[in-house]
Amino acid sequence: MFESGTEWLRAEGSATDVVLSSRVRLARNLAGLPFVSKAGRGDLRLVLEAARPAIERAALDKSEVWIDLHDASEIERALLLERHLISNQLAKGKPAPKSGATEWPRAVCFGLPGERASVMINEEDHIRLQCIRSGMALREAWRDADAIDDRLESHIDLAFSPRLGYLTACPTNVGTGVRFSVMLHLPGLRMSGEIERVRRAASDMSLAVRGFYGEGSEASGDFYQLSNQTTLGKSELLLLEELDGRIIPEVIEYERQARQSLLSKRRWQVEDTVHRAFGVLQHARLLRTEEAMKLLSVVRLGICLELLGHAALGDVQTLMLLIQPAHLQRTCGREMGQDERRRARADVVRERFAEH
Amino acid sequence: MFESGTEWLRAEGSATDVVLSSRVRLARNLAGLPFVSKAGRGDLRLVLEAARPAIERAALDKSEVWIDLHDASEIERALLLERHLISNQLAKGKPAPKSGATEWPRAVCFGLPGERASVMINEEDHIRLQCIRSGMALREAWRDADAIDDRLESHIDLAFSPRLGYLTACPTNVGTGVRFSVMLHLPGLRMSGEIERVRRAASDMSLAVRGFYGEGSEASGDFYQLSNQTTLGKSELLLLEELDGRIIPEVIEYERQARQSLLSKRRWQVEDTVHRAFGVLQHARLLRTEEAMKLLSVVRLGICLELLGHAALGDVQTLMLLIQPAHLQRTCGREMGQDERRRARADVVRERFAEH
Repeated sequence: MFESGTEWLRAEGSATDVVLSSRVRLARNLAGLPFVSKAGRGDLRLVLEAARPAIERAALDKSEVWIDLHDASEIERALLLERHLISNQLAKGKPAPKSGATEWPRAVCFGLPGERASVMINEEDHIRLQCIRSGMALREAWRDADAIDDRLESHIDLAFSPRLGYLTACPTNVGTGVRFSVMLHLPGLRMSGEIERVRRAASDMSLAVRGFYGEGSEASGDFYQLSNQTTLGKSELLLLEELDGRIIPEVIEYERQARQSLLSKRRWQVEDTVHRAFGVLQHARLLRTEEAMKLLSVVRLGICLELLGHAALGDVQTLMLLIQPAHLQRTCGREMGQDERRRARADVVRERFAEH
Repeated sequence: MFESGTEWLRAEGSATDVVLSSRVRLARNLAGLPFVSKAGRGDLRLVLEAARPAIERAALDKSEVWIDLHDASEIERALLLERHLISNQLAKGKPAPKSGATEWPRAVCFGLPGERASVMINEEDHIRLQCIRSGMALREAWRDADAIDDRLESHIDLAFSPRLGYLTACPTNVGTGVRFSVMLHLPGLRMSGEIERVRRAASDMSLAVRGFYGEGSEASGDFYQLSNQTTLGKSELLLLEELDGRIIPEVIEYERQARQSLLSKRRWQVEDTVHRAFGVLQHARLLRTEEAMKLLSVVRLGICLELLGHAALGDVQTLMLLIQPAHLQRTCGREMGQDERRRARADVVRERFAEH
């Protein structure tokens, strides 16, 4: 189903020491059909039927993969979730949008190679287009999304109000329906104790701070997703200018300063922490997902600070995906219980780091 | 002053999976002079003057080293303590045996090579002879001690009562004045939670359980020193028969069973713990003595269980000595503060384990 690589873990581009990936998401709904939360099963099927040919004609990339999630296996949906191609809600299929709807017709379509563009169908909105780029590249992601949106609109009729803009299920998305977000790696600010100050500042600027797996998830391994909250009354370019031109560069600068300050004030402790994390990853026989993410985060910091000559950023980021439960089971080719997964996780990590 | 090797860390002989070393200690006092606790400085000097030629004539080994501890530097005394050649009290020189004695005349003499036999002069008793052997070898250590004791007695007049036997400062030593002890490595019993039961059983049999550095020390890294408490009314051979013939073999068997039981019930956890410990030792940049001892203890277990093919028991036991503060400073050739020692300790460990 997937190729091995996924754009957001490619570790290439600008400011990759702090920015994992940049993402633009557009919320769109089809004209003349009720929003997902109000739709019956028949309506949702109509959305799927209308959206599929339009998306395929709009062309996400060289080729597309379409997956009907209501027919997909649990592990297939978990894989899509771990690859950040679908949301938790869409993966689980609950809470279902309308009472009585036992099977929720929903799908995802993503472009190959790289899964840079993807569309969730019948999530909170009929259509949620996501364009992602490695590193700090909000403008490039925006250009991708804007182009696909234009092509899509030429093939399908979208709900739009001349006064409000694009109509969306949640009022915070009304207007441009755009959400810009960046996945940041902020171990320096966490270690220096400044992360809460950054969280508060972000909140004051109406920015949302989320974890590695989006809404409601914890900041696994010091990864934080920063995004705008509301879209009404601000143009895409103004939002982009704020985030790309000012706010994100400032956060990147804070994080870099925090790292340099740690290095100059507590160099030995930082080196010790980094090397121990690498040592545990190279030797452990059992690893939980959470612990592995924390250790990988520390190793990632070590690589960025040039303390670990023998490990590559790309390997660390690939592992962040491969250690997740569904990917682990796909790699091993079988379903596994928790204990077995912990062993397999340690094996996968050890093999990857033994090569260097 | 020292050669690199010391008998009790040689890791050779019988039952080295559980027994680090076997030790026999004899308490003796010179006839006609007050016990150390009652002696003035002049008396203590007389003891030194009488003991030295007698010990040298008795010949501890191929050659002897005599060190006047009241003239020795603090680091020299710390080195002797870390090598288990002198007690904590003798190293520190306090509490001094008699009020007003600002300088406590005291010495140590040990045989080379291997430091297998040593004598502390003016510790609790005038003379404390210690003979040590690697592994389970109480009988051999006893033969060494008995032979030296005979030679010593032919050169000096010892305090002896036909009714009570050898007279000693502490009543528990009166009689044979002998203490047999073994240094045991009991990580299996600690991990299985049975160590307290063994402690209580030992106590019920009038055995003392002490830590790695003798009286009052903690069981650093799962090392426990087991020894008889009283010597009055029991012959040396009866004591030896009890310990060597029954009690110690039983403890060894308990520990081996605990290890096998851990392996069969929790093999993955044990392997994980062992390999993580080795990984941290191979990679850490800062190490405290206590943590290093704990990790070395786990690695020692891993070697005995054949889980770590690439590490040698001898290296682990050599490190147990080299990571101690005074040895570390001797290795580096300079005095170091605590932070610097933590770095040097990690370096010494890393270098040793990198060779394999």
